[in-house]
Amino acid sequence: MLTASYVRNRTIEIAEAETTPPPPPGSVQIAVSHVGLCGTDLHIFHGSMDARVGTPLVFGHEMSGEIAALGDGVSGWSVGDPVTVMPLDWDGTCPACLAGNEHICQNLDFIGIDSPGALQPLWNVPASTLVALPAGIRLDHAALVEPVAVAVHDVRRAELKAGEKAVVIGGGPIGVLIATVARSIGAEVAVIELDGGRREQVAALGFTTVDPRAVDQTAWVEEWTGGVGADVVFEVSGAAAAVLGATALAKVRGTLVVVAIHPTPREIDLQRVFWRELTIRGARVYQRTDFERAVELVADGTVPAEVLITSRVPLAETQAALEELESGRAMKILVDVAGKA
Amino acid sequence: MLTASYVRNRTIEIAEAETTPPPPPGSVQIAVSHVGLCGTDLHIFHGSMDARVGTPLVFGHEMSGEIAALGDGVSGWSVGDPVTVMPLDWDGTCPACLAGNEHICQNLDFIGIDSPGALQPLWNVPASTLVALPAGIRLDHAALVEPVAVAVHDVRRAELKAGEKAVVIGGGPIGVLIATVARSIGAEVAVIELDGGRREQVAALGFTTVDPRAVDQTAWVEEWTGGVGADVVFEVSGAAAAVLGATALAKVRGTLVVVAIHPTPREIDLQRVFWRELTIRGARVYQRTDFERAVELVADGTVPAEVLITSRVPLAETQAALEELESGRAMKILVDVAGKA
Repeated sequence: MLTASYVRNRTIEIAEAETTPPPPPGSVQIAVSHVGLCGTDLHIFHGSMDARVGTPLVFGHEMSGEIAALGDGVSGWSVGDPVTVMPLDWDGTCPACLAGNEHICQNLDFIGIDSPGALQPLWNVPASTLVALPAGIRLDHAALVEPVAVAVHDVRRAELKAGEKAVVIGGGPIGVLIATVARSIGAEVAVIELDGGRREQVAALGFTTVDPRAVDQTAWVEEWTGGVGADVVFEVSGAAAAVLGATALAKVRGTLVVVAIHPTPREIDLQRVFWRELTIRGARVYQRTDFERAVELVADGTVPAEVLITSRVPLAETQAALEELESGRAMKILVDVAGKA
Repeated sequence: MLTASYVRNRTIEIAEAETTPPPPPGSVQIAVSHVGLCGTDLHIFHGSMDARVGTPLVFGHEMSGEIAALGDGVSGWSVGDPVTVMPLDWDGTCPACLAGNEHICQNLDFIGIDSPGALQPLWNVPASTLVALPAGIRLDHAALVEPVAVAVHDVRRAELKAGEKAVVIGGGPIGVLIATVARSIGAEVAVIELDGGRREQVAALGFTTVDPRAVDQTAWVEEWTGGVGADVVFEVSGAAAAVLGATALAKVRGTLVVVAIHPTPREIDLQRVFWRELTIRGARVYQRTDFERAVELVADGTVPAEVLITSRVPLAETQAALEELESGRAMKILVDVAGKA
């Protein structure tokens, strides 16, 4: 059995797994099944997070597996239970935690970034991070629960309602999942995406797509909404131009949710924010309710897992998988850690 | 009796009032008492709003007076009633109005900007814009109701609560009124202001002030809030640097309210918005509930009108008053339209 570690810029090391110690009290040991690779993993691979990650780092935080062993004091779980992990370990004592916002703990340990992740056959995690999977769920599909939980959280932060219209700027994996979750609650969704290949993937899932180079996106949204403007705009692209244009798409008192990472300050049309009394809201990771809803959406097929999973690769090919991911063509690549597939 | 009109850049024309026609059906005629001058009036004076205003324009929208005549079909009002005017005339049919946001009507007539204002002895306005004043209120003080309503609206949009901590960036008239309203609901307030003279005025009203050139404002707020960050930050300065620094002052899930006008796009630290799940919210003018609350706050002395009114001038001196206002030293200059004072 193998592990994958980030060691330095563009270098993943594959090694034989050492013997995993038994889970400490309060923790469980998971036999990892599948791990999804995401944009954050790419950032790690590119060395952009070297200031934060300790190397070598076994990374990976989108996962599924089965409980292999229980540490002392763990109750409510059994060996063999199918599980996923909400990879947040908070201190419980900072102002954010005390205010009930543990997911934004000011000393958060994001498991798989700040501490070892799931690209290893046996993984010890605090039992408090476990999220139950229903019996019979496909464990490859269940590796999508974490990014789906991000999307559920984003839609919840938007306070999007049935019958409303949402624009998603950026048709990558998270954008598509936000569109999927928004549609699942009865909203109408349009996805703005520059890349033609991406637009085809998004359209194949039944979403309206907009090519902002071919049409005036503001005029398009104005017409689509009968002159009202979109109830909610999700900024998922990370592009400066997208941010600057996003406020023009929202209705009076509409909401712009900032999902993407913007490493440098971005220009925003505050005149429009003022004039239409817009709300701009940040949305970061998820809370337990989001994870639980995400499990349901994967289990009941609302999330089209088979379409979204571009490929499954053995753990030994993690580096090649990251290189494929950075081409921007793949939606979701799963690493088959258990090697059963 | 005189009127004051904006005719072109930096030029106010004083003229003998022509005979005012009787109020049309549904309108009332007001004998104007006092008119306050504000930043928007300065923008008009500077020619910055020439694309919007028709000249000559009798301007002025912060006012008080007494009903002098009733048009046909007006009920519930009597000649002699002390009143102020909520100077918004909406179409009632646009998407914003139909959604209950008439104050952001997409075809709004802001009376005193888009149509004639209060710098005239007799002024006809729709009865729907009237807001009752309590018997015995000083009409000079009541001319402050409109900017107080702005502040009430800003605080309401912030969802600020008793016991919370608010930072106001910018200690001009609106900043001081926001601080006053915030304190009236039981919040603790600190005002960040560059100008020493302004800081003295703000401190004299009992507010904590911060000179951002003398201290690190982020560290100051961090200490003031015990490491939590401010619950609400009001951006009232209009300065690009203030916007860029504002997000660092807010707590996890804190709110930044955009009060000031920012004519060009501003850089915002979206990484911070994302990381702390901040909310940025635009706030524009007011709704009737804000105006009614503002009347109470002026009437009961919560708003220290005598301190805020820097001077009272005859209508003939309107141009000189605007020139004094642009020096940035005056808080509120009232034009005594009736000439009784």
